[in-house]
Amino acid sequence: MLAFSSEFIRQGPFMSVVHGTAAKAPARLRPKVMIYGVGYYGMEAVRILVKKGWPIVAAVNRAGPKIGEDLGRLAGLNEDLGVVVQDCETADYATLDADIALVVQTERLSLNFAAYQRLLGAGINVICHGSESYFPQGADPSLAEKIDALAKRNGVTFTGTGIWDFSRIWAGMLIAGPCTELRSLTHRSLTNAELANERMMRAYGVDMTQAEFLEKVTKVPGQLGELYKGVPAHVMHALGFTIKNVTERREPVLSNQPMWCRILNRFLEPGISLGLRIIALVETVEGPRASAHIELRLLAEGESENMTWAVDGRPSSKIRIDRADGVHTSASCMVNRIPDVIAAPPGIRLISQFGPLRPSLT
Amino acid sequence: MLAFSSEFIRQGPFMSVVHGTAAKAPARLRPKVMIYGVGYYGMEAVRILVKKGWPIVAAVNRAGPKIGEDLGRLAGLNEDLGVVVQDCETADYATLDADIALVVQTERLSLNFAAYQRLLGAGINVICHGSESYFPQGADPSLAEKIDALAKRNGVTFTGTGIWDFSRIWAGMLIAGPCTELRSLTHRSLTNAELANERMMRAYGVDMTQAEFLEKVTKVPGQLGELYKGVPAHVMHALGFTIKNVTERREPVLSNQPMWCRILNRFLEPGISLGLRIIALVETVEGPRASAHIELRLLAEGESENMTWAVDGRPSSKIRIDRADGVHTSASCMVNRIPDVIAAPPGIRLISQFGPLRPSLT
Repeated sequence: MLAFSSEFIRQGPFMSVVHGTAAKAPARLRPKVMIYGVGYYGMEAVRILVKKGWPIVAAVNRAGPKIGEDLGRLAGLNEDLGVVVQDCETADYATLDADIALVVQTERLSLNFAAYQRLLGAGINVICHGSESYFPQGADPSLAEKIDALAKRNGVTFTGTGIWDFSRIWAGMLIAGPCTELRSLTHRSLTNAELANERMMRAYGVDMTQAEFLEKVTKVPGQLGELYKGVPAHVMHALGFTIKNVTERREPVLSNQPMWCRILNRFLEPGISLGLRIIALVETVEGPRASAHIELRLLAEGESENMTWAVDGRPSSKIRIDRADGVHTSASCMVNRIPDVIAAPPGIRLISQFGPLRPSLT
Repeated sequence: MLAFSSEFIRQGPFMSVVHGTAAKAPARLRPKVMIYGVGYYGMEAVRILVKKGWPIVAAVNRAGPKIGEDLGRLAGLNEDLGVVVQDCETADYATLDADIALVVQTERLSLNFAAYQRLLGAGINVICHGSESYFPQGADPSLAEKIDALAKRNGVTFTGTGIWDFSRIWAGMLIAGPCTELRSLTHRSLTNAELANERMMRAYGVDMTQAEFLEKVTKVPGQLGELYKGVPAHVMHALGFTIKNVTERREPVLSNQPMWCRILNRFLEPGISLGLRIIALVETVEGPRASAHIELRLLAEGESENMTWAVDGRPSSKIRIDRADGVHTSASCMVNRIPDVIAAPPGIRLISQFGPLRPSLT
């Protein structure tokens, strides 16, 4: 069993806390980056990196029509970057000369594990854009242990990040900061199910009968189940609490009035699911609890995406983040974390162990 | 001229950045605290410290009826703490055996300077609850230089903090974190002028004619002038920008309808000031700007205190903090910073150079 410390790595602001198996050189001024997965988010990261002038030294993807294409063209840059997408199964990772890889594949550690093995095994630091990777020890303790050992053996770091970095994880930590008493923290968020495409919208359980929702979403994790419980678990871990129990409930969001669905171009009748509600509860050995109330659904007139954390304690402050430009933000959170991850000691390191993100301006 | 670094002290998460003239021992588990100023905020800090079980070893105040009283009684604790309030002019600071002092006097560095000299001179770390002390080098560069030199000479640290810690300074830094482009940051806040007493309310310029406001508030700094410009200046400095110019404008908040004033128990007619609006603008050498739009005034029906930061850049996120329990929060921010300040290298250290506050639970 891994003994993950809940201490900040920068804990005791002036103490040198270098542990792990290998001391690493300070981050290069212009780190050499590779992209593992040339989809929507990966291409946004490419555009940010090119603008910053950080060298992209390689790109790999699963087999298919993108193999052999130039990354610049795939990213819509109207110029070749001289980086040809290679097949992730056959690329020679030892020769890629990358400091760090951005892995943009799936939300699940288990599905991404082959990628981690290839990269960490070749001595390449990894930033993963996948919900489970923010807090691997919470999502899948035994796999986390393997990733941690693999990273340490090769003297590199594994960190998960994306848009939750400042909007969910650090916002929760910030609002708990002044507390002298803390009974519970409550996280609430509203995400627009219609922001992406019809496939994503249906993954949220939109337009299902309650019976269908029960079968496809409540009884099995589906595409999003078990992911958001990582948010309150991560925050409580980062605040120094020992997690005792984490539960999640998934239910359809219903309305007693017909709701217009822009993507389907028709009304959804009362009783039909408008999306997914996730209720997660984290209990700690020390007593304080955290809960999350996450809704991913059609928005009513006048509603907008937001996330809040509220403190039941003293002081009982509240924080709200309104995000815009989600794809860019997820990609920028990955890019802006690159220096932290390269400089970190080997093993799994959480964004909560670094400081809050710092802007990285071109 | 002091060369204040805008780098985070915990910069490069794993580098040991111990500088200054004296290395300090790690923070004690239970630091010995003294109180300099036994007013409203100081007494709230006493109640928090007593609940935490951190020893309060001394208290001083200006001459008056509180001298000779026991601190426990002054803090309404129904028990003696065995700490008798001494006259700040005549106390023997060398014998007080305090690790750190909480200075709760005035908002101005110049008015607090005698206290700093006594404490820093005796080798006692200082946390000051005063608006100018958050960013001394912005508020009064020459005095900041003296404080910094004094602290370094005596191997101790000077830090200013209070409720702005998480609600204004760190909230601004958090929301800028994901940026890849940053044109400007805008801070807005609304503070209820009727939360405290009539004296405070009048300090905000409530119930003045416009001519009176011009004389007493616009033309002279008054009680609040020149304080809030430190907020955007501090955030831009902490984000690594070089500050070129800082301006502040003060004007009365007016309404075209009569507004009810609870404290005065009557309506204020249109044209009479309902409070103070402060517009601060910070320009940087690098280009990005920050502005603050601060209103301290009577609230209309349905309004509540809040503060926001918005980014003009990419991503253009927004953050809003709703505070409650202001006196407790100001005091808890001081108390929760004690370990950071004791552990910090000598000299002036800003809260932005530490990490965000961490809760300190009893």
